[in-house]
Amino acid sequence: MAIPHPHLSAKSLRWISDQYFGMNGTFVETLGAPPTPLEFSRLAHVSRPVIIKGASSSTGADWTNEYLTQAMGQQRVSVSVTPNGRADSITRGSDGKLYFTEPCTEQITMSELLGSLNDEANQEVMYLQSQNGNLYTNDFFTTGTSSTEFEPLRKNVPSEVSWCSRAFGRPPDAVNLWIGNHKSHTSIHSDPYENIYTVVRGAKHFLLLPPTEGWCVQEHLHPHATYERSPEDGRLSLAPSNESVPPVRWASVTDPHLPDSLPDGAHPIEVTLHAGDTLYLPVGWWHHVRQSHGVTIALNWWYDAEMAGGSWTWLSLLRGIEDEVATEEDDVNTTAA
Amino acid sequence: MAIPHPHLSAKSLRWISDQYFGMNGTFVETLGAPPTPLEFSRLAHVSRPVIIKGASSSTGADWTNEYLTQAMGQQRVSVSVTPNGRADSITRGSDGKLYFTEPCTEQITMSELLGSLNDEANQEVMYLQSQNGNLYTNDFFTTGTSSTEFEPLRKNVPSEVSWCSRAFGRPPDAVNLWIGNHKSHTSIHSDPYENIYTVVRGAKHFLLLPPTEGWCVQEHLHPHATYERSPEDGRLSLAPSNESVPPVRWASVTDPHLPDSLPDGAHPIEVTLHAGDTLYLPVGWWHHVRQSHGVTIALNWWYDAEMAGGSWTWLSLLRGIEDEVATEEDDVNTTAA
Ligand SMILES: O=C(O)CCC(=O)C(=O)O
Ligand SMILES: O=C(O)CCC(=O)C(=O)O
Repeated sequence: MAIPHPHLSAKSLRWISDQYFGMNGTFVETLGAPPTPLEFSRLAHVSRPVIIKGASSSTGADWTNEYLTQAMGQQRVSVSVTPNGRADSITRGSDGKLYFTEPCTEQITMSELLGSLNDEANQEVMYLQSQNGNLYTNDFFTTGTSSTEFEPLRKNVPSEVSWCSRAFGRPPDAVNLWIGNHKSHTSIHSDPYENIYTVVRGAKHFLLLPPTEGWCVQEHLHPHATYERSPEDGRLSLAPSNESVPPVRWASVTDPHLPDSLPDGAHPIEVTLHAGDTLYLPVGWWHHVRQSHGVTIALNWWYDAEMAGGSWTWLSLLRGIEDEVATEEDDVNTTAA
Repeated sequence: MAIPHPHLSAKSLRWISDQYFGMNGTFVETLGAPPTPLEFSRLAHVSRPVIIKGASSSTGADWTNEYLTQAMGQQRVSVSVTPNGRADSITRGSDGKLYFTEPCTEQITMSELLGSLNDEANQEVMYLQSQNGNLYTNDFFTTGTSSTEFEPLRKNVPSEVSWCSRAFGRPPDAVNLWIGNHKSHTSIHSDPYENIYTVVRGAKHFLLLPPTEGWCVQEHLHPHATYERSPEDGRLSLAPSNESVPPVRWASVTDPHLPDSLPDGAHPIEVTLHAGDTLYLPVGWWHHVRQSHGVTIALNWWYDAEMAGGSWTWLSLLRGIEDEVATEEDDVNTTAA
């Protein structure tokens, strides 16, 4: 079901994105060193992506398989498992319908994860992408402790990016570790967070669109499904959720790299991060993420978006989010009807 | 002639301003001391007005009539003269039509200006409001010199506000001196500038609306006029400009303090600045300005608005400015037709 924009016509959305593009092009600044808090505050005000070299704040780890397996030992960690490397993505079910499909989540050891990532013949794709603040959650900053499956790696990952925390005047809301290989893609989406994303091993490839080009990814409401492992044959299959699970608003464009997948009003920006590179990915920017160079490992710090001022209203207008609570209820009713 | 909004319906404009108001209310922060550059950068990112106490950067002047007349001597300065204290304002001509009317500009001495401002019986209203960078223009920052009628007062007014220049990473575009009394009102308008406005004598009363409430002031295109002094009787009268002068887009609401002058979707914010108080008035905010307490003197530093990122597109969308050049031409053609 397509989501009609409550306020902007296709022509107006196009006018806005053309204006933005006319003033900003596809410019991505690259800094040779971490910014000062004041410099970063200015960059966050402009809210365009920035690549920062030499800002990796990870310490005392070389992020090799040896280091990770030794440090983590028999500790089990939650990984996403899919047959195709598409977690949280629009996927066709055996009934021919398209679903927003969440991965199967399983707990395995670091050594099992790395073994799987190095095994090209594997029929299943694993991706450590729990992204629930798997290293530090907000609790850590408010209460001083928070649970993590990655306790042994905390000493390698500072809980804050100092220039960013000082610029925003607050600690991050979540800090995450990501471990995957070329088989995993993260589908295009945008987050209500300011994101500092650092690669510590391998390489990540981002395709970015500004908030003004959100109309290019064609958000629709999709019924919800999850990959489930069959107790009989142990295979994964897409299981539609029952009707009480609300449909999910998600981009219909599944791979923005495919020719003609984006309309000609889109101006995708492609950014590759190698180990040691950091991306400032501003709130509301659309991103599709892939990785290469064998096992790729990244860290990210999510900071709450600024809620004072007009930016949130602007982002909501661009996405056509009428009123989050009301709309979700409306959507459920519409779907049920 | 009303200006139709090219992209937003009345309902959408209302939705946007309701969203903004719901998240921001009419909150104006007051700081007890000047902010650091980093603190100010955060405030500029939020782009809401802020009152700053004790930040007046004027030095070595008490701004009394005695000081000013002595310092300025026989130097002539440009002042705006009107019969009613409404310079740059919508005014009815003798033909019954409404005009955007500019003041008569005359050159007089400081002693004549202050004499006029202290003379309650005066039939004419003078306001020193040349606002062309009358203290410092951009040339001063690029070439090291710029012409001014107020050379003797420059030593009392720093060319920059340090925390603001550091936050924005650039010097101001214009620095102005304002001298007037309670008879002058500045009609409601918005500027493409970040504004640091300091009162050094008397008191100023601002009525503010956020950029999202611009629809409440009802911009229209108005034919242009100027007050001219008759060579015969020496009196001022409103002289419509000839047809080659393009009409001016200006708020139709002439006094937002009058009951029912603003629709119920407007949430005006009233702010009074006394001597020593500074207002950060962010780009795009609508302001109507009055003064009291006899002669009121103010200084302001205008900084160019940030053109990178999405804020300019957002402000243009809110004002319904389609494309400044094209629209002005269209307007002329429409008016001529
Ligand atoms: O690294 C990935 O696969 C996705 C990262 C992402 O979406 C994020 O940091 O918001
Ligand atoms: O002080 C006034 O009368 C008007 C000030 C103003 O409009 C400005 O500083 O932008």
